[in-house]
Amino acid sequence: MMRFARTAAVAAPGIRAALGAGARRMSTGPAGGAGSWRFARRLGAWAAGTTAVAGAAYYLGRNEIEAFDTAEPAPELRLLAGAQHRGYPVAEMERTAGRERLVVLGAGWGAVAVLKTLDTDAYDVMVISPENYFIFTPLLPSATVGTVEFRSVMECIRRIVKRVRGAFVEASAVDVDLEAKCVLVEHAGAGRVWVPYDRLVVGVGAQSITHGAAGLEHCHRLKTVLDARSIRQHIMANFERAMLPTTSADEKRRLLTFVVCGGGPTGCEFAAELHDFLAEDLRHFFPQSVRGMVKVMIIQSRDHVLNMMDSAISEFAERQFDRSGITVITNARVQSISETALRYTTRAADGSLQEHEIPQGFVLWSTGVSLTPFTRLLCDKLPDAQKNRHAITVDDRLRVKGVADGSVYALGDCATVEYPQMLARIGELFDSAHAKDTREITRDEFAKFVRSAAAAYPPAASHLHSLMRDFDEFDVDSSGTIDRGEFGAMLQYVDSKLTALPALAQVANQEGVYLGRALNTLATRRADAAPAVTAADAAAVPPFSYRSRGTLAYLGRAAAADFGEGNTYKGSNLAAKYLWRSAYWTQQVSLRTRFLLMIDWIKEMVFGRDISRF
Amino acid sequence: MMRFARTAAVAAPGIRAALGAGARRMSTGPAGGAGSWRFARRLGAWAAGTTAVAGAAYYLGRNEIEAFDTAEPAPELRLLAGAQHRGYPVAEMERTAGRERLVVLGAGWGAVAVLKTLDTDAYDVMVISPENYFIFTPLLPSATVGTVEFRSVMECIRRIVKRVRGAFVEASAVDVDLEAKCVLVEHAGAGRVWVPYDRLVVGVGAQSITHGAAGLEHCHRLKTVLDARSIRQHIMANFERAMLPTTSADEKRRLLTFVVCGGGPTGCEFAAELHDFLAEDLRHFFPQSVRGMVKVMIIQSRDHVLNMMDSAISEFAERQFDRSGITVITNARVQSISETALRYTTRAADGSLQEHEIPQGFVLWSTGVSLTPFTRLLCDKLPDAQKNRHAITVDDRLRVKGVADGSVYALGDCATVEYPQMLARIGELFDSAHAKDTREITRDEFAKFVRSAAAAYPPAASHLHSLMRDFDEFDVDSSGTIDRGEFGAMLQYVDSKLTALPALAQVANQEGVYLGRALNTLATRRADAAPAVTAADAAAVPPFSYRSRGTLAYLGRAAAADFGEGNTYKGSNLAAKYLWRSAYWTQQVSLRTRFLLMIDWIKEMVFGRDISRF
Repeated sequence: MMRFARTAAVAAPGIRAALGAGARRMSTGPAGGAGSWRFARRLGAWAAGTTAVAGAAYYLGRNEIEAFDTAEPAPELRLLAGAQHRGYPVAEMERTAGRERLVVLGAGWGAVAVLKTLDTDAYDVMVISPENYFIFTPLLPSATVGTVEFRSVMECIRRIVKRVRGAFVEASAVDVDLEAKCVLVEHAGAGRVWVPYDRLVVGVGAQSITHGAAGLEHCHRLKTVLDARSIRQHIMANFERAMLPTTSADEKRRLLTFVVCGGGPTGCEFAAELHDFLAEDLRHFFPQSVRGMVKVMIIQSRDHVLNMMDSAISEFAERQFDRSGITVITNARVQSISETALRYTTRAADGSLQEHEIPQGFVLWSTGVSLTPFTRLLCDKLPDAQKNRHAITVDDRLRVKGVADGSVYALGDCATVEYPQMLARIGELFDSAHAKDTREITRDEFAKFVRSAAAAYPPAASHLHSLMRDFDEFDVDSSGTIDRGEFGAMLQYVDSKLTALPALAQVANQEGVYLGRALNTLATRRADAAPAVTAADAAAVPPFSYRSRGTLAYLGRAAAADFGEGNTYKGSNLAAKYLWRSAYWTQQVSLRTRFLLMIDWIKEMVFGRDISRF
Repeated sequence: MMRFARTAAVAAPGIRAALGAGARRMSTGPAGGAGSWRFARRLGAWAAGTTAVAGAAYYLGRNEIEAFDTAEPAPELRLLAGAQHRGYPVAEMERTAGRERLVVLGAGWGAVAVLKTLDTDAYDVMVISPENYFIFTPLLPSATVGTVEFRSVMECIRRIVKRVRGAFVEASAVDVDLEAKCVLVEHAGAGRVWVPYDRLVVGVGAQSITHGAAGLEHCHRLKTVLDARSIRQHIMANFERAMLPTTSADEKRRLLTFVVCGGGPTGCEFAAELHDFLAEDLRHFFPQSVRGMVKVMIIQSRDHVLNMMDSAISEFAERQFDRSGITVITNARVQSISETALRYTTRAADGSLQEHEIPQGFVLWSTGVSLTPFTRLLCDKLPDAQKNRHAITVDDRLRVKGVADGSVYALGDCATVEYPQMLARIGELFDSAHAKDTREITRDEFAKFVRSAAAAYPPAASHLHSLMRDFDEFDVDSSGTIDRGEFGAMLQYVDSKLTALPALAQVANQEGVYLGRALNTLATRRADAAPAVTAADAAAVPPFSYRSRGTLAYLGRAAAADFGEGNTYKGSNLAAKYLWRSAYWTQQVSLRTRFLLMIDWIKEMVFGRDISRF
């Protein structure tokens, strides 16, 4: 969920300098002139801040102005007169000679990155998604408590599609005919229609799992804007209800116990945002008696929260939560959830299982993803090539395995990249690495091998280079050289690193940018030839390499980032908060959301969050 | 629904000057460098605008900072141990010695004006409303299309209550015991409780009528934020559906026909805002073929739209609508509404009734209000004094008629002020006006009479003064003097003017400010005595006088205002639009909403409205 760009650091100081004066949360002294003066200073800082940041927003977003300025009408899909396929009509947009039809399914990180990277006249683009907006998922936890507004984390997909003069249809893909090359799409209640493609990009994401504990229907999820809205309403409803004179103390305590199941980035950030909301805003409007009753809990099945990040960050997060009064329960397994309680088990020191039941007024379930019905159907059509139960397997050019002509791509949470196994070629690689007369690889030979292998296969480059650093570690017998067994362990390490791409916005975005560029290359290559997709396309583009730009987490007036290889950043001051914000700010897909986010953050700083139950 | 303050004119030029450069909607030329430059200029104007307007917002909102700065915890209602009344428990907030308990029902214009006017330590204030926010109703039509955000037209009632250190309970009043002086309140699903009062303010508003045509369940209303949200979702859903290749041309035309039943300010402003949305934003994102199919219709039962305003304004509005392509059908009566069609009748020139049926995709019903269940119940408890079927009758001090000690007040849409009839005192008044020896009143005598009568009874002052101007008109026999019959007609005119206060935000607001001041006076008067409400309270405060500040309407890049007495303003340029906006802007109840509105308007200007279906 978390993304971090090195470029963020550039924007951060400017924002902080501008906002700094106002950012110091006012001490809560008595009312009067001093307060007014401090308030006036805040407003001054705000005016300076907006001006400075507007400049930055313009600089970052100037590419989008091209799309903003055009008044060209949007193209649309029309039924092909008389055309029928397997019982349903066929629809197409107006064709441009010499262009292939590119159909994009989905409007998430992957799909949007493709659309933003595509050349404006490379393809006849059709985008199909059940929602007409893109969501900036990493800021959804902030939206649940009103730190940012819902519309500030959304961008209408029609605006994005407009740049490539594409057509958009609000519908879901329900079937695909890989031979006839068309997808069947459906808008609830309005019939189905086939949309033919020359190339198909599947970026439909994954769905939350619906199993794992009993009573998941009593939980909130946090995948969509609608989820965020219902969470916000639920939180406010609980507070208003806790304030009624007829509500007993026990019931108040229950209503004000907020439980987060899952200690991943989403769960932790939600807990942090919720705590901020309680500590910074609600406390001003709710009586003393209620304040002491509020409880935020995280229930994590592993040893630590944020277990996919560096252990230093996990520990830092737990210390932060402890300081804020957020209860973290680790090594716990949620058994069942009812409307008013949650049961979980922990394992005691002696290994025995202990049952616990807590009354709760709110549960967020933020753990696990699974295949959507459409991706499952696609996999079932390719039983020989698709054996992964959790995602569509694609090759290192993001082409769905098993589709002979390579015309179907998949990316983002619904896809997993299968790189060629280096271990499978161990004999050949080992022989190429060591000198003819030895069966050992010296450090110098290994360095040469890394250089040539990295050049031959860029996706593995960074992992190969890290082997150089850890040479001594892999040299188990400390002989100063690497034998075949040790070499095998090294290749296995690289293979494992290559296949384990996490389900992050960052990964989907990089895949989308890569695929957009690949599609641009393929379009240029045959600008004058008749459109035709072939398996040989692959040769024209390099394989996809993922480069982690760090994983970022907000922890409630503190933030942490994991840049991999043990490099971490931990900050528990305002600088960390604004660094976190500016990182996301530079990642926005449009100038509009950048502007809105800036306003939201300033608004939150000056006025606090809105507590209306709406 | 419309309000207009003379002070608005002060703010308007500054805002316009600041926004002017950006306000010129960009011509839709080809993409490229020129566009970027114009866009940059817009952003420059935006930065200058925010700075200028932030100053004005601070100036207007500095009173609220008092509430913002205090960190004092909010008081709460607690059950009185052991206390029961007619089967339900009794709750109260912590009492302050020497203060009366003031219970305010509702969180609309009237209630909020009372709360904002009350001295901070005059009463123990308890506010009870089923929603925890106030809505700036005149901007609801703007919110339906996203010109402004929902949160920008809402202010949390807890923020407002905080200034008077009051308690808020999210509940509805369901019963009142006028003898025991307590109201029974209920939060859905959480039981009922009695809340005792010394003085009760009823500001619960009115509800939309649920009769008048068959099939009203297929219509939208526009009274709450939830209404506005469902309207917005419906509009976007229709557009997305019209864009599907499977949707036939007839069905597209139906989906894109938006019908407004009722040509009052809300209906007209909604039609105007909808047209702006279509013309300024949606056209950029939807194909040519769909644009020509969009139709906005207003069906009005009277001769003209905006019939409560000056006829010059009605005509201007109709001309404006005609120019924008909004169809206005007058003298029409809606018979029935189904999911896909609307039937109405008109009367032909020969007097015969003609039936019409139009396919529609959206109907807004914006005509008529009626009593809520609670106000009906209150009236039924006072059968002798309360004979009006449409509102609670209050005297000229806003005290509910029939409540002996005058401890219950009502204001806003749920109340109607009954002034003492001047015509009833015609003998006494006529004798005081004319010289002893004549039975005629000369112009000079009449002027003297107007002066003394206006001083004696301020609410009638402006109407009495207008009689001076129309002296010749009432002098039917052109004798130059007024006889008893003519004098009677004059008094009848004044009486009619006094009783006909329209259901406007402006009226509710003035009533609230008046009542707040009256309550302040009554509290000061007995600061040291034991709290006691008596009918003699009335003598301490002057009667309520309504002074119209003009009625304003937005008509789609045009606006009109009616200042009464035939004084009107009509403008069909940007100045009118910004005048309209700045009038509402100065009327905001909080600095926060002022800030948000400003941002919304700038955002709309620079980025257009969001078209995400959310």
